[in-house]
Amino acid sequence: MGLLIRGAAVLTMADRNRIIDNGEIAAEGQYISHTGPAGSAPDRDYDRVIDGHGMLALPGLVNCHTHAAMTLFRSYADDLPLMQWLEKKIWPLEEKLEPEDVYWGTLLCCLEMIRSGTTTFADMYFHMNQAARAVEKAGLRAVLSRGLIGAAPGADKALDYSRRFVRDWQGAAGGRITTMLGPHAPYTCPPDFMRRVIELAGELNVGIHIHLAETRTEIEDTGRQYGKTPVALMDGLGLFELPVLAAHCVHLTAEDIRILAEKQAGVAHNPESNMKLASGIAPVTALLAAGAVVGLGTDGAASNNNLDLLEEMRSAALLQKVATMDPMALPAFTALSMATVNGARALGLPDVGLLKPGCKADIILVNLQRPHLCPRHDPVAHLVYAAHSADVDTVIVDGRILMEKRQVLTIDEEEVLFEVQKRADRLTGK
Amino acid sequence: MGLLIRGAAVLTMADRNRIIDNGEIAAEGQYISHTGPAGSAPDRDYDRVIDGHGMLALPGLVNCHTHAAMTLFRSYADDLPLMQWLEKKIWPLEEKLEPEDVYWGTLLCCLEMIRSGTTTFADMYFHMNQAARAVEKAGLRAVLSRGLIGAAPGADKALDYSRRFVRDWQGAAGGRITTMLGPHAPYTCPPDFMRRVIELAGELNVGIHIHLAETRTEIEDTGRQYGKTPVALMDGLGLFELPVLAAHCVHLTAEDIRILAEKQAGVAHNPESNMKLASGIAPVTALLAAGAVVGLGTDGAASNNNLDLLEEMRSAALLQKVATMDPMALPAFTALSMATVNGARALGLPDVGLLKPGCKADIILVNLQRPHLCPRHDPVAHLVYAAHSADVDTVIVDGRILMEKRQVLTIDEEEVLFEVQKRADRLTGK
Ligand SMILES: [Zn+2]
Ligand SMILES: [Zn+2]
Repeated sequence: MGLLIRGAAVLTMADRNRIIDNGEIAAEGQYISHTGPAGSAPDRDYDRVIDGHGMLALPGLVNCHTHAAMTLFRSYADDLPLMQWLEKKIWPLEEKLEPEDVYWGTLLCCLEMIRSGTTTFADMYFHMNQAARAVEKAGLRAVLSRGLIGAAPGADKALDYSRRFVRDWQGAAGGRITTMLGPHAPYTCPPDFMRRVIELAGELNVGIHIHLAETRTEIEDTGRQYGKTPVALMDGLGLFELPVLAAHCVHLTAEDIRILAEKQAGVAHNPESNMKLASGIAPVTALLAAGAVVGLGTDGAASNNNLDLLEEMRSAALLQKVATMDPMALPAFTALSMATVNGARALGLPDVGLLKPGCKADIILVNLQRPHLCPRHDPVAHLVYAAHSADVDTVIVDGRILMEKRQVLTIDEEEVLFEVQKRADRLTGK
Repeated sequence: MGLLIRGAAVLTMADRNRIIDNGEIAAEGQYISHTGPAGSAPDRDYDRVIDGHGMLALPGLVNCHTHAAMTLFRSYADDLPLMQWLEKKIWPLEEKLEPEDVYWGTLLCCLEMIRSGTTTFADMYFHMNQAARAVEKAGLRAVLSRGLIGAAPGADKALDYSRRFVRDWQGAAGGRITTMLGPHAPYTCPPDFMRRVIELAGELNVGIHIHLAETRTEIEDTGRQYGKTPVALMDGLGLFELPVLAAHCVHLTAEDIRILAEKQAGVAHNPESNMKLASGIAPVTALLAAGAVVGLGTDGAASNNNLDLLEEMRSAALLQKVATMDPMALPAFTALSMATVNGARALGLPDVGLLKPGCKADIILVNLQRPHLCPRHDPVAHLVYAAHSADVDTVIVDGRILMEKRQVLTIDEEEVLFEVQKRADRLTGK
């Protein structure tokens, strides 16, 4: 019974950056049952024994903010001003999206995530039943929310959809799927609507995933309209009394930082999206110093343009160093913590993102025997500053192998690439 | 005779960002003899026909600044202040370096570069005969310079070494190796010494590779000592009358930018090293607007920590956008031009970095049939914003195949990883 990984260097994330050089990890069902040095795992018949020699075993990566199906729009529109990008390029395509498009776009997202070591992600989009179907099939863990635009005509319908979505999918796929409500942003969800969302979240006992303080324009507009920052406005409505996942948090006052830290809101930092759309540089160093819970996200593939958390760790670390002019800012282990255990906390998943008995068996093996990871001075620095997604060899979620030796076992790759290309061609009128 | 690539999408870089959807490239000896659509290449017996279906063919990438053998120190010391990093970590190891260490470290660099699509690089280090041996073996193109510290006791000896090195290696390996003189930086090479270097470069008819305006400290110190910026100081000495490759150029005045552009000095922009060491953000957008010749570099693997030009393109583009708060800054095609044709110009190699008849047959094939490159809206945006080094399938230099289907043909990978690990262990006292 169960699964045994042996011979790997093991980084549990539960004991600072200590690495067990020749370690063992055992899993039973969905859970880790043991971690320790060679020979320490219970001596019994395992269903599967994985040879991890030359590999680094660590918790699967956690992507705290994305719009999965936007893989359909990857590299469709780049290097444009935000409003032109949205109004002329992205929104017209989104209007043409059919439910099945979201299924295939999300499945492509899942495929890419598995291939780059991500085991959990937080998604906000629409046609979310289709996204949930894709997550179920892929075998990943996900926190799903139906995006809500309070100012739009369909707002009530979308709230009803969300209520049903939570009822249908909360805890589905053996607990791999959890749900949140997804009010898009303070500037698209006025206070009256936000009150309804907050009330419904309390009633359904779920958290709230929201874009917050992403651009200077948002700060200026909110200030003009309400005389407050977006964070203060949301705080006044009681948002932070619920579990919150706040994406971006780029433009913050010292008081905003204090609120986010005190309320232990989850912050999803998306450095590459913020750079690409020229939104700004989030004060991650200050958030961490204040004790905030900060995870990492890629945002959608239309503004990144990949969903590669290894790369996102690197960008996060490098960007904080140059932004603060301090080479010690956001060191490698902190970046890795954001991409694993802290990201999971931001998603309200306390038993994810670290390898210790009782936690979910979400494990990745990274092949260290690569020219760009040689010599082996410091595997954590290698992961953050030198590795790329193709170094991820094996991916396990809930004790189930999703990828082995870079072969994805749950998804037919050729079929997904064919379906997505076909649908992208239809959407763009080719 | 010769080599034919067919079926690939071809991006020549000679005709803006136009892509020949189903193209052909023929090479004879070291040179491209033809590019065009399917069926247009001369109909004759080619020694090798490469099937490029599903691939994007483009010029090999050009890394304008590195210290190749510093792969030995990759991930040995990170997240430290610059002077502590140098004085406590890097310099003590460099003192222990033996010539053969530089050979193996450079060979590892070459292996990593081939595997990530780089075909030409500019290197500055010491024991450069060993570096040249490694380049010769690897089959890459390189511009090599012996680093010179004018303030050090061995300055005269190093100049003599440089003179012999240029004599022995200029034009070697069938022209793949060219040389420059390598005065380290204005703050380590006082004006008197720089005058001798400039004179010698004129005598030997080679260019000069130098670090310039990298840190705020350098600007402050040069200002205090000479009342000038480093660029103005070098200009006053006549440096820019020679072909120059100036690495970093992070802290520049408007007048510095004017000088660099007017003298058409090659600028090697190293965004990830500048971020990681918290040196600052180079004014690339302003340099380009002024008409400067700007290429991309990784700097050494001790401050990056990989030598991945695809990643460096992405970082360059994203960093300029957020630094200027303009999402249109440094668009994808401009970043790719920096990594190919403009980088080659910065190295004084006008027949490198573009695919047209008469240019060097330095070609890479990138596999576009990947989940993270699907759907295929815009291959150039894919390359810059989504691709990673493992997508590079085939690498050709001087018409010779160095890597095919990700198998490197010129270097024994296992031997290099073994030798480098052994030497790294010796250097760090393990
Ligand atoms: Zn978003
Ligand atoms: Zn350098």
